[in-house]
Amino acid sequence: MNIRKDAEELLRASLQAAMELPRTCVTESLGILPQTEGKLLLVAVGKAAWEMAQAAYEVFGDRIDGGIVITKHGHSRGPIGPLTIREAGHPVPDEHTYAATREALALTEGLTEQDTVLFCLSGGGSALFEQPLLPEEELADVTRQLLACGADIVEINTLRKRFSAVKGGRFASHCAPAKVFGVLLSDVLGDRADMIASGPACPDASTCEQALAIAEKYRLSLSPEAHALLREETPKELPHAETRVAGSVRQLCESAMEACRALGYEPHLLTDRLCCEAREAGSFFASIAKTHSGNRRKLAFLAGGETVVHLTGKGLGGRNQELALAAAMGMDGLPPENALLFSLGSDGTDGPTDAAGGIVDGSTASRMRASGVSPADALANNDAYHALRAADALLLTGPTGTNVNDLTVLLVE
Amino acid sequence: MNIRKDAEELLRASLQAAMELPRTCVTESLGILPQTEGKLLLVAVGKAAWEMAQAAYEVFGDRIDGGIVITKHGHSRGPIGPLTIREAGHPVPDEHTYAATREALALTEGLTEQDTVLFCLSGGGSALFEQPLLPEEELADVTRQLLACGADIVEINTLRKRFSAVKGGRFASHCAPAKVFGVLLSDVLGDRADMIASGPACPDASTCEQALAIAEKYRLSLSPEAHALLREETPKELPHAETRVAGSVRQLCESAMEACRALGYEPHLLTDRLCCEAREAGSFFASIAKTHSGNRRKLAFLAGGETVVHLTGKGLGGRNQELALAAAMGMDGLPPENALLFSLGSDGTDGPTDAAGGIVDGSTASRMRASGVSPADALANNDAYHALRAADALLLTGPTGTNVNDLTVLLVE
Repeated sequence: MNIRKDAEELLRASLQAAMELPRTCVTESLGILPQTEGKLLLVAVGKAAWEMAQAAYEVFGDRIDGGIVITKHGHSRGPIGPLTIREAGHPVPDEHTYAATREALALTEGLTEQDTVLFCLSGGGSALFEQPLLPEEELADVTRQLLACGADIVEINTLRKRFSAVKGGRFASHCAPAKVFGVLLSDVLGDRADMIASGPACPDASTCEQALAIAEKYRLSLSPEAHALLREETPKELPHAETRVAGSVRQLCESAMEACRALGYEPHLLTDRLCCEAREAGSFFASIAKTHSGNRRKLAFLAGGETVVHLTGKGLGGRNQELALAAAMGMDGLPPENALLFSLGSDGTDGPTDAAGGIVDGSTASRMRASGVSPADALANNDAYHALRAADALLLTGPTGTNVNDLTVLLVE
Repeated sequence: MNIRKDAEELLRASLQAAMELPRTCVTESLGILPQTEGKLLLVAVGKAAWEMAQAAYEVFGDRIDGGIVITKHGHSRGPIGPLTIREAGHPVPDEHTYAATREALALTEGLTEQDTVLFCLSGGGSALFEQPLLPEEELADVTRQLLACGADIVEINTLRKRFSAVKGGRFASHCAPAKVFGVLLSDVLGDRADMIASGPACPDASTCEQALAIAEKYRLSLSPEAHALLREETPKELPHAETRVAGSVRQLCESAMEACRALGYEPHLLTDRLCCEAREAGSFFASIAKTHSGNRRKLAFLAGGETVVHLTGKGLGGRNQELALAAAMGMDGLPPENALLFSLGSDGTDGPTDAAGGIVDGSTASRMRASGVSPADALANNDAYHALRAADALLLTGPTGTNVNDLTVLLVE
């Protein structure tokens, strides 16, 4: 079955692209970094901080006058020249987070306008880079209050930025008058720079007025100190800071499209912003498969994004596995040589499982049934992991070190 | 805003294509009807029976030796030459159904192999063409039992075909040895001829064994007569009958694609088998819009099919309106000149409303809010009709006389 071999090659190419993204996005961005006369400092934060910092170090080497890497526990892969390497808590900040952030702030203290801070930011930066302006317990309490009253993520972030010394553009303010050149690897759909890790180097669009209105709306119980912070405006202009979203699921989609072309498929990028319910996206893809399967045209339909799962069952799975299971049900009976779908998390993990996603075709559902698994029951129980495992349809890749959301590809011919 | 003018032109063209489909699918099919030496009889059944019969009459005129048209109450548009016109109950068969079916069976009684029956079938034919082999009350009781124990539509049809003198290929058997030439206008996704109106002129794939197993599985309470009918096999081969699915949502999509091309849009048919949850399809389309909007390429993404709505609220709407509302929420804020979506039922009615669907862009959600309507609350309450009406985003077309499922089109530029 050629289509399966093609899919395996495509998967290999997509995973490699995902793993190289931290490096390529830094390397490509640094080409346009203006010459610097003063000091060149590196601050790399996030789950891909190590890889991004190493790429920067390979480009600049000894020209870097100092730098710090703050990544998640277990994500450092060793020393990089003279750079300070720190690991900290994620998704919940810990003492290492605050200590490392203090080091980064000290490193970038008292700079001149001749100096440049190269700021490499990736997913996870929100937890890994933080200096709270309130006692930790009060911050946690405010977050609890907000969650309990159903505040949305935009509202929560509007307040949290004001309780932080680095979020909402404040890290760039701290570096002023030095130039700040931000290179972002995005795990946020739509790549809004001010949303990625709460935008430490981006002008903040939210206002004190909005922050106070949110506190009022939810009748939050706040200390006088917290109240005072809500009145302190975040930076609205940062002329010395430039930010570039250099890598995202978009680039991953483009790499996959290139690999599709190399394999003789005509690629169609549907979206890099997929955000609907995982199982319904799977059904939609299956409908596409049913229409184009057997048409003797080698087509690839791609979507990047991050679907959602509303848990109602007690099974095991993740959004990519659930999408793949639903697709397998919709594709049931299609000739396996004519249509194949895979969906994977670019970080190599999908939900609380050891799988990155699933790979399915028209024979997958019957293989499940032959193993005594009802695909419909598994889906109803959010148990895609066991259903896919029964059909040998799990994708097991191991962690890639990059999180730029998910990639779904349907091949038909 | 050109894109809106384009969409209106596209809508006009699509509706016209839908309305002409009964005629064009008959006219095109009759070109390949073999010459007939004996009698030529016409039996047209379904919601589009009148239009299909008229098209056939225009082609054959006096060569037709007799014919009957059985359509839904209110769907006849007057006499057609010497044809007998009958209206009957839909979706529930009534005495007119049975009387008209008896007339059709009498008309096609005692034919020779020189004769030909031209059988035009469209949606609704299941209720409009029926001669039960069981007393009506018993049939209704069996159906109730099946529904109560959660039998699926395939299981229900497997039994019902055996309780009918015309379904499951039996009408074609009745016409034998005359040739039967079936022209089908499909309202069934995937266009399986044996699924359309339970396939009166198609070999039936289900078996007595399956029928008996279903009766056993659900422990149905059946009379001895009903039990005996389950043992009577339906026709498995009908060499004298030829069936052609001549019109379906596929043709509607193709007409719309042609109209897109004429307007300068590059059309992409995603699927003609869309069947997922309406609101999630809307979200998926909105994700496509967000990715391609503003890219300066005039693209059209099309899907034909029939989404589903799981009612949890108490509002008013239909699947096309719900898809459009969800799309409006996802497209919120996109420049209205760059992206526009419409979704419509080809029969001109969507749910229990006077609307055919909705037409939305990046300004629709804010227009709703300006009218005091929360799009999210409306969606949660299945109240797309009122939300779309508040934003002047309802499609009001009036009935088209054709049901070939739904068409969704997204235009971007």
